[in-house]
Amino acid sequence: MFDRSDTALVALRRILRATELSSRTLARQSGLTTSQLIVLQIIARSGRTTPGAVAQAARLSQATITALVDRLEGRGLVTRRRDTEDRRRIWVEMTDQGSAALVEAPDTLQDRFRTRFDQLEDWEQAFVIAALERVASLLDAAGIDASPVLDLGAIDRQLQEQKRSSDA
Amino acid sequence: MFDRSDTALVALRRILRATELSSRTLARQSGLTTSQLIVLQIIARSGRTTPGAVAQAARLSQATITALVDRLEGRGLVTRRRDTEDRRRIWVEMTDQGSAALVEAPDTLQDRFRTRFDQLEDWEQAFVIAALERVASLLDAAGIDASPVLDLGAIDRQLQEQKRSSDA
Repeated sequence: MFDRSDTALVALRRILRATELSSRTLARQSGLTTSQLIVLQIIARSGRTTPGAVAQAARLSQATITALVDRLEGRGLVTRRRDTEDRRRIWVEMTDQGSAALVEAPDTLQDRFRTRFDQLEDWEQAFVIAALERVASLLDAAGIDASPVLDLGAIDRQLQEQKRSSDA
Repeated sequence: MFDRSDTALVALRRILRATELSSRTLARQSGLTTSQLIVLQIIARSGRTTPGAVAQAARLSQATITALVDRLEGRGLVTRRRDTEDRRRIWVEMTDQGSAALVEAPDTLQDRFRTRFDQLEDWEQAFVIAALERVASLLDAAGIDASPVLDLGAIDRQLQEQKRSSDA
C-alpha cells in the first residue's frame, strides 16, 4: 500500500528523472548542456549582443555567462569581438557552426515546460509555484542559490562529467 | 525581471539541486546510494527478513531489491542465507559492518522529507501531491516508471558512476 508521502516521492522522482534523461539526450545529440543551449538560443535571437544583455535575458549572473560563453567559444559556436570604437565593449556573435548546432539540438524540456506553464490559468500558475516552493522548503532547499534552468549539475559545468555518468 | 515561469523554474532547480547534493553527501560519507541506504534501514529494522518483505517495505520491485541486496552483500553489509528447513526461502541479515555503516550514514533527505510531509495537514499534503503531479505532466514525466525514492540515476546503480560526476 502506498501512503501519501510515497505518492509525493513518486511524483518527485518522475520530475527528477525526466530532467536527468532530457539533459542526457541533449548532451548526446548536441554535446551541449541545457544552460549552454539557452545561452546559444539567446545569442541567435539577438544577432550581435553583449555578455551583459545575455546575462539579463538568461537571468544568470555575469560570471556564469562568462563561463558559458567561454565554453561555447571553445567549441567554435560563438565568437567574442572587441568593439572597434569602444574598446571596453565586447560583442558576442553566433558562428555558422553555432547556427548548425542550434538547428540540430532537440527541444529542451525547459522550453516545453515554459510553453505549457505559460498556457496555464493564473490561479494554476500560482498554485504550482506555491507548492514547488513548499516542497523546496521541506527539502531545506529554499536557501540554495538557484537559476531558472531546468538542469542538474553546476550551471557552467563542462560536459565530459555528464557524459561519464551514463547509468540510464 | 523574473516572470512566473522563471519563479517556477527556480523552485524546481532548488529541488533538483538539493537532491543531487544530498546524494553526493551520502555517497561521500557512506559509499551508499539513497536506495541502498533505504534497503539497509529496512533490513536493520526487521532483523532477519526476506527479499520479498524488503521489496514490499521499500515499495520497490523484487528485481530491484535483488540488485540492491547484491550490492550490499558485495560490500559485506548484509548476508544472504538459505533457510535450513525450507531451501527455497532466503534470509537476509545485517552484518556488524552493515550496522556500523548505518550509524555513520547521514540522515537522508528522503527521511527528512517524509517526516515533514507527514506532519502537514491533510489538505496541504493533497495540495502538494496535486501540484507535483501537475508538474510531472507538464514535463511529460507522468509515464515514467518511478519508485518512491528521492534520488537521481538508476535505482540499482553502482556508486562509481556517481562519484565520478563530481561537478559541485
